[in-house]
Amino acid sequence: MRAARYYNHHDIRIEDIPEPEVTPGTVGVEVAWCGICGSDLHEYIDGPNFVPPPGSPHPISGESAPVTMGHEMSGIVYAVGEGVEDIAVGDHVVVEPYVIADDVDTGPDSRDYHISPNMGFIGLSGRGGGLGERLAVQRRWVHQIADSVPLDQAALIEPLSVGYHAAQRAGAKAGDVALVTGAGPIGLLTSAVLTAMGVRVVISEPSALRRETAQRTGVAEHVLDPREVDVVARVAELTDGRGADIGFECTSVQPALDTLVDALRPQGVLVVVSIWSHPASFDLLTVVLKELEIRGTIAYVNNHPATIELVESGKIDLAPFITGRIGLDQLVDEGFETLIHRNETAVKILVSPSGRGLEG
Amino acid sequence: MRAARYYNHHDIRIEDIPEPEVTPGTVGVEVAWCGICGSDLHEYIDGPNFVPPPGSPHPISGESAPVTMGHEMSGIVYAVGEGVEDIAVGDHVVVEPYVIADDVDTGPDSRDYHISPNMGFIGLSGRGGGLGERLAVQRRWVHQIADSVPLDQAALIEPLSVGYHAAQRAGAKAGDVALVTGAGPIGLLTSAVLTAMGVRVVISEPSALRRETAQRTGVAEHVLDPREVDVVARVAELTDGRGADIGFECTSVQPALDTLVDALRPQGVLVVVSIWSHPASFDLLTVVLKELEIRGTIAYVNNHPATIELVESGKIDLAPFITGRIGLDQLVDEGFETLIHRNETAVKILVSPSGRGLEG
Repeated sequence: MRAARYYNHHDIRIEDIPEPEVTPGTVGVEVAWCGICGSDLHEYIDGPNFVPPPGSPHPISGESAPVTMGHEMSGIVYAVGEGVEDIAVGDHVVVEPYVIADDVDTGPDSRDYHISPNMGFIGLSGRGGGLGERLAVQRRWVHQIADSVPLDQAALIEPLSVGYHAAQRAGAKAGDVALVTGAGPIGLLTSAVLTAMGVRVVISEPSALRRETAQRTGVAEHVLDPREVDVVARVAELTDGRGADIGFECTSVQPALDTLVDALRPQGVLVVVSIWSHPASFDLLTVVLKELEIRGTIAYVNNHPATIELVESGKIDLAPFITGRIGLDQLVDEGFETLIHRNETAVKILVSPSGRGLEG
Repeated sequence: MRAARYYNHHDIRIEDIPEPEVTPGTVGVEVAWCGICGSDLHEYIDGPNFVPPPGSPHPISGESAPVTMGHEMSGIVYAVGEGVEDIAVGDHVVVEPYVIADDVDTGPDSRDYHISPNMGFIGLSGRGGGLGERLAVQRRWVHQIADSVPLDQAALIEPLSVGYHAAQRAGAKAGDVALVTGAGPIGLLTSAVLTAMGVRVVISEPSALRRETAQRTGVAEHVLDPREVDVVARVAELTDGRGADIGFECTSVQPALDTLVDALRPQGVLVVVSIWSHPASFDLLTVVLKELEIRGTIAYVNNHPATIELVESGKIDLAPFITGRIGLDQLVDEGFETLIHRNETAVKILVSPSGRGLEG
């Protein structure tokens, strides 16, 4: 079967590799669609970061580069391993792409398996990936999804779960006012979750093209240009002078952080969703005097069921976030290069590893 | 009566001023002892900060400099205003020194009156102060304390409440491991509260004299010199590799912050207690990947009753934190100057405004 294999930065190869073995306890998934994530781009540009380099196998998967890429995937079950009885061939599924040690509690009450030691991701740390035609996944990480949700939209459940977890980390509740800085894919999907929860969302985004996307997708009540509007003053105006209840940093740029610290109400919560590769500066005097809380958030932990429910119930329509569809052969030239050089227009580019999604 | 009056930085005068009027709803307190706080020092060195300068009266008290200083006070009730029936002449009391607008909910369930708009402090924003012989305080802000607690120790209830509130902001609970950076007065008193709660406290403090005080007062299980010991490695060792559950930043220096971010366990909580007058730098990548929480804390809010209980029950002995006793006339020369130039040996210097505490 064909798969996109990561060897090194700027070295991703489309290769023929053996079919996965559907061993006991695993589910064989025929990938329908797989999204390209910002972390895939980082691996391509300046990795390996998450990918274990040759000679340094991942402590849990035991694999190292080359590995199959792709972790935002939907698909159809084509085989079930011995002992798997609650899922059937033909079921539509999404994958929660974790590589986690066997002795970690991943039960429904766990709130921390995603930050367990040596945690890795399918599609980065081994165990196959969504940018291959098929993969075998431990039953625990496979989530069924109603046939009524198109499989292309289902591929966005994974990044939507990132937004869901971020909203949960903030303690978001209906009626809250949220300021979201940045309308890239994660800012948009976090806003979509918040809006579906009944939160009033204000987005601050300097790019006109991204503001248009935020408007078009209807994820926010207000979409502001921080170069034109005093965002802190506008948020104060919208909240009777109180300030935003919660804030989401989805840009990794300093002015966004400063705006959030100033725009939050006393005892407000700022969730940092973006990956900062450089140090951030904080006005801690304001953090102290307003008793703000700053919380990191990463990935998701038991958030897939609730996220899937938001999509199945129609509270979130993921169709408007899909801005491209390509085959494996276009992955680098059309996928990565578009996201690197024209990232203001693209939200989510989906890949059909078999090419069948592109027919007809 | 005599009082220390703040006019401007380096201009504090001991003056004769009129007795306070014990109006309806207020309590007349004869001050026994008043501690000198770091914020008093800041007013002296580079203020006015909290003190409203002449011509800019405080929006709630209506007063401006000169104001009577001092907000860490204990005393004895000498008069009660009309309508005050649950407190009697002769009662020993401490003051929760707030100046808060009348329309703010300051009931027992409020968790935010201390960050209400225009909040000020008795002893900084008007309404008298503990560095005068007597003051009249609204009943709400007067807390009775058992006669078994010496009045000099009672004067430390106020800064101890700061530590109590910080511990509460961290969600501290028995069995937790806490890393406290800095063994100045607030670091020590926060540690005392944590230890009394059953938290295992590790203090990191570069000053040998302050480490000695931390050892002498018994507020920590381990007192480390960060110039000699790898604090992050030592905390990991003490927690089976997990990391500290909670951290308290009581220094306002960057290396302490970095140590805390590295030493905390995943989903650990870092409470910033110190006042940062300069920007702080954060490794947000670590904050995100470990899902840390950073929380500001300021002063106290409905924390006096529980703090007083810790002292009345003997769980905290405040005697070892008192390192000096002076009269009003020595306030600047012996009080402020000692704290500025020999602050590594002094913890809390108490002032007896009437001088009677110094007799015999």
